[in-house]
Amino acid sequence: MTLLAQLHLHLPPWIHDEVDAQRDYRSPADKIALAIDLSRRNIRHGSGGPFGAAVFDPAHRLVGVGVNRVVPTACSLAHAEMMAFATSQQRTQRYRLNEAGGRWTLATSSQPCAMCYGALFWAGIDDLLIGARASDVQSLAAFDEGPLPTDWQGELQARGIAVQADLARESACDVLRAYGSGGHVY
Amino acid sequence: MTLLAQLHLHLPPWIHDEVDAQRDYRSPADKIALAIDLSRRNIRHGSGGPFGAAVFDPAHRLVGVGVNRVVPTACSLAHAEMMAFATSQQRTQRYRLNEAGGRWTLATSSQPCAMCYGALFWAGIDDLLIGARASDVQSLAAFDEGPLPTDWQGELQARGIAVQADLARESACDVLRAYGSGGHVY
Repeated sequence: MTLLAQLHLHLPPWIHDEVDAQRDYRSPADKIALAIDLSRRNIRHGSGGPFGAAVFDPAHRLVGVGVNRVVPTACSLAHAEMMAFATSQQRTQRYRLNEAGGRWTLATSSQPCAMCYGALFWAGIDDLLIGARASDVQSLAAFDEGPLPTDWQGELQARGIAVQADLARESACDVLRAYGSGGHVY
Repeated sequence: MTLLAQLHLHLPPWIHDEVDAQRDYRSPADKIALAIDLSRRNIRHGSGGPFGAAVFDPAHRLVGVGVNRVVPTACSLAHAEMMAFATSQQRTQRYRLNEAGGRWTLATSSQPCAMCYGALFWAGIDDLLIGARASDVQSLAAFDEGPLPTDWQGELQARGIAVQADLARESACDVLRAYGSGGHVY
């Protein structure tokens, strides 16, 4: 077989038209609302699973976004959080986003799965904002989240990553529920 | 800021010249030897960290390889296992490698970190072959592996992923040691 040496992943084109990259996303509520909005738009456009994420710099500016692209790109790595990390790192040309200082934030519409959880430790994130819980993802949309350390929040905090969970949880759950029922969200 | 919608990662060009993609990698020893060889070549070429990984199909053919590319590509996702998963999935156009059946194998020069561990559950892998232990990675090369579930091997086995560890461990450790000492491997 021929080995591939190139990997090319892409977000859907609607992010350029539908995401306001110039806005100030000052509060945790502003940030999580964008992540949930991305998850909603992703199922509305049929461009992937019901998950959205966004990275913000210390000045609360939007640096990168991600939506789930596993099926369209045939790549199991293409979860929303991973796409947000990677596009933000390409944008800044830093593999550890916070290496130049300040607090960097990831907002994600649902609790990170086992892979995205592990990725958090290397991406250079200081604040993690979460909408729906893993149990919501499982019960409403039937996605497996994988095994985590028993005290997963404590492990993050021990390494300097602060966690705020259950932010706009009901709004995040509405998207999961719509996806799980095979419906659409408008 | 302008949002990036494209992500482009690449393996070093030497993989085309130095990896024999036509060979039969029948035994676990053959498979792990390739993963360790990749880790050695990666530090020899100065193309990334001391880690290598390879994916094999049920007929023991090499489907994709990966080496650590975090620094050269400015991307914290670009661990050896992740690059091997993603290039194999692009090659087969399947986000779950084993969805067409048969046993698929990942061989990795060192125990997967927390991110790559989580990624194993979604990539479609049935057999995991590991060279060096996480404790070797920490003590010899000073890389943090991140938090795992207490019974990390049991969690894999509970989801149908068989694990063989300590394969050619000393050979894998030689590469980590060379990297950790700032030396080169020939």
